[in-house]
Amino acid sequence: MLGIYLENVRKTVPLVHNITNYVTVNDVANILLACGGSPIMSDEPEDVEDITAICGGLNINIGTLNQHSIQGMHRAGKKAVELGHVLLLDPVGAGASALRTNTAVALMNELPFTVIRGNISEIKTLALGSGTTKGVDADVADAVTDDSLDSAVAFVKNFAAKSGAIIAVTGAIDLVSDGKTCYVIRNGRPEMGKITGTGCQLSGMMTAFVTANPDHKLEAAAAAVCAMGLAGEIGWSRMAEGDGNSTYRSRIIDAIYNMDGQTLDGGANYEVR
Amino acid sequence: MLGIYLENVRKTVPLVHNITNYVTVNDVANILLACGGSPIMSDEPEDVEDITAICGGLNINIGTLNQHSIQGMHRAGKKAVELGHVLLLDPVGAGASALRTNTAVALMNELPFTVIRGNISEIKTLALGSGTTKGVDADVADAVTDDSLDSAVAFVKNFAAKSGAIIAVTGAIDLVSDGKTCYVIRNGRPEMGKITGTGCQLSGMMTAFVTANPDHKLEAAAAAVCAMGLAGEIGWSRMAEGDGNSTYRSRIIDAIYNMDGQTLDGGANYEVR
Amino acid sequence: MLGIYLENVRKTVPLVHNITNYVTVNDVANILLACGGSPIMSDEPEDVEDITAICGGLNINIGTLNQHSIQGMHRAGKKAVELGHVLLLDPVGAGASALRTNTAVALMNELPFTVIRGNISEIKTLALGSGTTKGVDADVADAVTDDSLDSAVAFVKNFAAKSGAIIAVTGAIDLVSDGKTCYVIRNGRPEMGKITGTGCQLSGMMTAFVTANPDHKLEAAAAAVCAMGLAGEIGWSRMAEGDGNSTYRSRIIDAIYNMDGQTLDGGANYEVR
Repeated sequence: MLGIYLENVRKTVPLVHNITNYVTVNDVANILLACGGSPIMSDEPEDVEDITAICGGLNINIGTLNQHSIQGMHRAGKKAVELGHVLLLDPVGAGASALRTNTAVALMNELPFTVIRGNISEIKTLALGSGTTKGVDADVADAVTDDSLDSAVAFVKNFAAKSGAIIAVTGAIDLVSDGKTCYVIRNGRPEMGKITGTGCQLSGMMTAFVTANPDHKLEAAAAAVCAMGLAGEIGWSRMAEGDGNSTYRSRIIDAIYNMDGQTLDGGANYEVR
Repeated sequence: MLGIYLENVRKTVPLVHNITNYVTVNDVANILLACGGSPIMSDEPEDVEDITAICGGLNINIGTLNQHSIQGMHRAGKKAVELGHVLLLDPVGAGASALRTNTAVALMNELPFTVIRGNISEIKTLALGSGTTKGVDADVADAVTDDSLDSAVAFVKNFAAKSGAIIAVTGAIDLVSDGKTCYVIRNGRPEMGKITGTGCQLSGMMTAFVTANPDHKLEAAAAAVCAMGLAGEIGWSRMAEGDGNSTYRSRIIDAIYNMDGQTLDGGANYEVR
Repeated sequence: MLGIYLENVRKTVPLVHNITNYVTVNDVANILLACGGSPIMSDEPEDVEDITAICGGLNINIGTLNQHSIQGMHRAGKKAVELGHVLLLDPVGAGASALRTNTAVALMNELPFTVIRGNISEIKTLALGSGTTKGVDADVADAVTDDSLDSAVAFVKNFAAKSGAIIAVTGAIDLVSDGKTCYVIRNGRPEMGKITGTGCQLSGMMTAFVTANPDHKLEAAAAAVCAMGLAGEIGWSRMAEGDGNSTYRSRIIDAIYNMDGQTLDGGANYEVR
């Protein structure tokens, strides 16, 4: 039952430092507040160490990276590691440009991330690009479906084991693994893909969930994925005629705001492999 | 009939690279998704060429330009030209500061834009500031109204012919011309001026429309203008008592999300001169 | 009666230059439009002087400061002072990092701000950190409540007198003072703390109010605080089952959009000390 991990966020109000893209940053902040966490944003290299020091978790998202913010990511990351904080990487666009791939791989090689969350394409790029993942078979399909599920689960488990991070691959079916166990999650709706930033929002929220549940990091990461998908389902059920992706965006954040542990327990749709 | 140009966006899902301001970027991303396109944002000079290469169109908006992103605009623009991509300029604030005017003029002189979209004041600034527009009479009124329509149409046609770009001037009456033909469009509502970024959203969406309709660029640009204005009308019709500009913002994006070719054909209000 | 100060914003449409964080910037722009003002954003040092020159007020918010934008803040601030513009400081996160504290103090020591608006913790940091505030007793409680009200009012009056700025401390109870008089304001709802950026929005709107009321700056600043809190109350009254913080965000901006002077007069809840 995953509801307790949401309740722990609301009880402990984890402060999350986000170095994230300027496209979806407002939604990341509002969903962090909605789930019971508290957001701070800072990417200036001279500022990030102090800000990370007062937080419990650090969410690094490379969606609109620049030379300056990349320095901020490294400096904040090192400080977070020193302090034993939760550290999450969202490698937005890894594989789409050399700078993004190289930045994500460099961060991964330097920092022992607690969680890495991306789509299958981004995660495959990291598995192939990172020296620590030698031996990982990244030859899985480009979408996780029932047909490709077995090989995808094996890939995610293997990459998690080799990298030492919890790996969360999100898509039509979501996979979250620490190398031994893999949560296979079927919450969510395809229309969520028509909103910018549901992935970024999930990364911010997942950082809060894992920070609030230090002894159950895998379960907390899986709970965040279920909560996001369930919010997509609840939000969709409240859509009226004429509503579209902009209203849907608000309805999803609203659903997180109103979600309690019991709702999450009742709606989470997953199996453990 | 312009509906087909919207339907082509939904069929081909053009990927649009946006170098745009951080004020309205989230709305630009969501309206691109709403109309059937797919957005990517990147302004880092070391990143933009790779990102542009995987897209079909590039939308350059100087709304919160900085020295770093200006380099990104030039590098991305050159790559887009090399690859034959659609290239749109939104000269936000040209005329309001020397840096904005000089940046817009420099971009225009260097890059053969497919479309330039702005308000009448911005477009006049470009016409006066750019060497390529010698001979253009920019002595038109500061608002396009029925009284000033003839001279405004002549100005826009002339500037389009001299610059080689489709020129789109938006305001109470919108004008879109390739130098020979001019669409005069009367969709929209004045309350749209109370929302930040409807112009930026239109520029993003127009890039998708033109990218999806390579053989009908003028018609596609005009269709985007009609779609935005019609969405403003549909969105307004769904406003309830107590709603204001924030809700209106969502209703407009929602209206694009739900618009099909037939709706656009039925609601587009334009004449061709 | 404070309604007249809102009406003056709608009559004069003050143009406000915002150097503000990328988290909440879209909401700042939309609330400025909602209250009758007009927003421009620019942080590039080479751009800010020209942009400030065409405005009436400058809102400096250090929420996602960087080395480049800090230069922009100083250059814009000096130009605004030269031109006699309204100048507001929102010291987001002062006290949370050395860079934020030092930047806010340096700005304050260099520029004669018209208004400084923050939470009690940020304002105490400035009072302690700034040489101009010697003798200010910052030993007040960390939240302004009925129990701590007397000492908080004394602190705010004293800091306003020493700094020469109107000081606005916002929280459960809001205080606005010019050193002689102190408005004690009890509008608002606790749920506003679950939305990112209500403070940033207030700073933007307050800049417009003060700019539109040059002969009644203190009253205008207090009116902006009442308007924001009242919008929080009106917005909350329109919430439906299932709505959450994202919808609430829109409802608050909508309430500002629909507010007239009479509504503000009827709903403002304050005393003058």
